[in-house]
Amino acid sequence: MNKAIFYHAGCPVCVSAEHDIIGLIGSEKVEVVNIGEQRDRIQEAENAGVKSVPAVVTPNGNVLHINFGASMEDVKS
Amino acid sequence: MNKAIFYHAGCPVCVSAEHDIIGLIGSEKVEVVNIGEQRDRIQEAENAGVKSVPAVVTPNGNVLHINFGASMEDVKS
Repeated sequence: MNKAIFYHAGCPVCVSAEHDIIGLIGSEKVEVVNIGEQRDRIQEAENAGVKSVPAVVTPNGNVLHINFGASMEDVKS
Repeated sequence: MNKAIFYHAGCPVCVSAEHDIIGLIGSEKVEVVNIGEQRDRIQEAENAGVKSVPAVVTPNGNVLHINFGASMEDVKS
């Protein structure tokens, strides 16, 4: 099975979501791509159908856009 | 570790996202709750911070709201 790919842009909410996604899926089953740093992969993400980050592209090509919803603690910090 | 909980409402897009989530996380690590059918669990979902479905509540209590993004095939069918 191909890996899932988690695209994010390095914001605090994205990083929090990254920890959750890796905890749920397992780091060996998901590749993490920071498209803020790896800008040459933005086109790849767009081609996969990513409209916003954070998002997970599943091994079968579906895109799950994640709206983490900032916690009040995130807002306060 | 507690299980994650995937809340959905039975729509085609939710069911598609459910298959993806179970495929990614593993059925043994996620409880699936159809709050359209199990209406007594709507309050539980709201208390957990669920604002929209489908959504995953992680074992540590974070809420990942998922905007699956209907595929063109879903739209056509």
